[in-house]
Amino acid sequence: MSTRQSHRATILDVARAAEVSRQTVSNVVNSPHKVAPDTLVRVQAEIDRLGFRPSRAARTLKQERAGAWGLEIDARGAGRLGSVLDAFLVELTLTSSRNDTHILPFAAPDYREPIAAYEEVLASRLADGFILTDTRHDDPRPQWLRDRGIPFAAFGRVWDDPTETAWVDVDGAAGVETAVSHLVDEGYQRVAFLGWPTGSPVGDDRRAGWARAVDRLGVGDEAWQGVAVQELDAATLAARPLVDIVGPGGAIVCASDALAAGVWRAVHERGLRPGLDVGIVGFDDTDAARVLGLTTLRQPLTEITERVLAILLNAQTPPAAGTVLHPELVRRSSSSRTVIPPAR
Amino acid sequence: MSTRQSHRATILDVARAAEVSRQTVSNVVNSPHKVAPDTLVRVQAEIDRLGFRPSRAARTLKQERAGAWGLEIDARGAGRLGSVLDAFLVELTLTSSRNDTHILPFAAPDYREPIAAYEEVLASRLADGFILTDTRHDDPRPQWLRDRGIPFAAFGRVWDDPTETAWVDVDGAAGVETAVSHLVDEGYQRVAFLGWPTGSPVGDDRRAGWARAVDRLGVGDEAWQGVAVQELDAATLAARPLVDIVGPGGAIVCASDALAAGVWRAVHERGLRPGLDVGIVGFDDTDAARVLGLTTLRQPLTEITERVLAILLNAQTPPAAGTVLHPELVRRSSSSRTVIPPAR
Repeated sequence: MSTRQSHRATILDVARAAEVSRQTVSNVVNSPHKVAPDTLVRVQAEIDRLGFRPSRAARTLKQERAGAWGLEIDARGAGRLGSVLDAFLVELTLTSSRNDTHILPFAAPDYREPIAAYEEVLASRLADGFILTDTRHDDPRPQWLRDRGIPFAAFGRVWDDPTETAWVDVDGAAGVETAVSHLVDEGYQRVAFLGWPTGSPVGDDRRAGWARAVDRLGVGDEAWQGVAVQELDAATLAARPLVDIVGPGGAIVCASDALAAGVWRAVHERGLRPGLDVGIVGFDDTDAARVLGLTTLRQPLTEITERVLAILLNAQTPPAAGTVLHPELVRRSSSSRTVIPPAR
Repeated sequence: MSTRQSHRATILDVARAAEVSRQTVSNVVNSPHKVAPDTLVRVQAEIDRLGFRPSRAARTLKQERAGAWGLEIDARGAGRLGSVLDAFLVELTLTSSRNDTHILPFAAPDYREPIAAYEEVLASRLADGFILTDTRHDDPRPQWLRDRGIPFAAFGRVWDDPTETAWVDVDGAAGVETAVSHLVDEGYQRVAFLGWPTGSPVGDDRRAGWARAVDRLGVGDEAWQGVAVQELDAATLAARPLVDIVGPGGAIVCASDALAAGVWRAVHERGLRPGLDVGIVGFDDTDAARVLGLTTLRQPLTEITERVLAILLNAQTPPAAGTVLHPELVRRSSSSRTVIPPAR
């Protein structure tokens, strides 16, 4: 077995070895100016020799810092296809570990009262601030946090207060415009849109990009749109009339990969082939897109997580306003009218 | 705006209101036996009136508890399809929030030195113990934790020490046997297996279930197996020869949905139809299975997370040994030789 000590050295071990009180050891760690120089040297030598590490609890009392950032997880995900936010949590965890900080995910037991969950995390002193996702209109969280001086950064625009808050978002409208242009370049002649019910700022933004692009390129009509929630059967149902409208040689752009998976199903049901007959573009490059071969818009999650953490870890820098990044078009067979050879 | 106070009451606020020292307030919270009864009543009244909540840091110093459990996230996931472990993290977070505890995900900067990351989390006092996943042979973590008396529970058998540790796992071999029986009942006459490279105890367990079932039912041959890592192109490549071996009327059972997605692709490449021509069964009921319509074995994640947390939160109960749960067969079109009507 290893020669390591079988338990971590405590403050008491150091105090005994240096023949001083626990309080003196504590002073050496937290208030060295209070300690006589020769004692300081002797105690520090024992701290080094024994490998004593002051506990986070002790340091937190002094520094009032937890060393972690709260991230609310949506508890209503059951039955829905995974969203980009699951991938965001994993990416944040990886980036945090490289930057000597941590992420504390939590869920609001009652989604209608999100503030209560934030209060609980703060009261527990497990987080120094928050990373907001699922930002929306009439979102009570940003103002509540600002009123209390609690640091936060958002993945997604702080829609009600975009200039005085710190956030990182992706230009969904521009991304969808890129997708429509790509489909027209590939030879599709009609482009419909499947989105979320109106009122979601992210969904409305993506819909606006489609409306602008089809108007500019003359390949769509305002009536060629449908809505569904983020669930496969609902998306399939909403996709059927759109498939009938655009028909072979047409295409459908979607606000998410889950919606695009519904289009993929509806296309198959009609005996048509994704790509070859009807073009499909999703959003987020989730597993659904990868296994179905869906062209999609990928959000640069690594850059987003790095920027969000930089805002929180460098709070002394100017309270950054928003940063808008561009999504990347990932081309796969669902937007190609010719057969793409399979992987070798 | 709300009538709430704009900042949380501090120990100093209570001390001033009750006209006592901070130390007295601290004693009321942590050592009430040291405080005179009338003072105790007066200070407690101010604590209640002001809504003062002792900080977690202060309680942690006293109780030596953080109120959270560390969960290592595999940093090598890039490019791979999502695994059941991402869903496990989300499920654990939801279950923890309902049980007044928290999950602290972290990643090992160097996956070859997992212990260093566990040491760092402990030194930070951000977690009271750990939930282990990705358990394997020659896993240094269980012994290291046991030597130090650090609580842990595993999702997955503690393979090197299954009787003296606490874990919850799913019977993968029995699940795969169920899948093979189901395929035979559906009329498939030959059943191959696509798994992970040997040496992974989970993968080897699932392979053993296939080998037993095809031997018992006379529908397979030891040579009808392939291996691939958890990545779509690799799985597709490994699936091609198996599709050729079993042909129409045959089927392929897989150690994961990601591998099954590769089989799905290989079946399409050969101009065959999943289900109608070649049966496919995956494992884990991930998004890939749902969008492709793959029959799969679902692990009962809600029950698993509840049991894992119960082990940690009730550490005074007997140090539970292992619990084995059964996966549920989720039937979809990929194991049906007749057309399943689409969702309405």
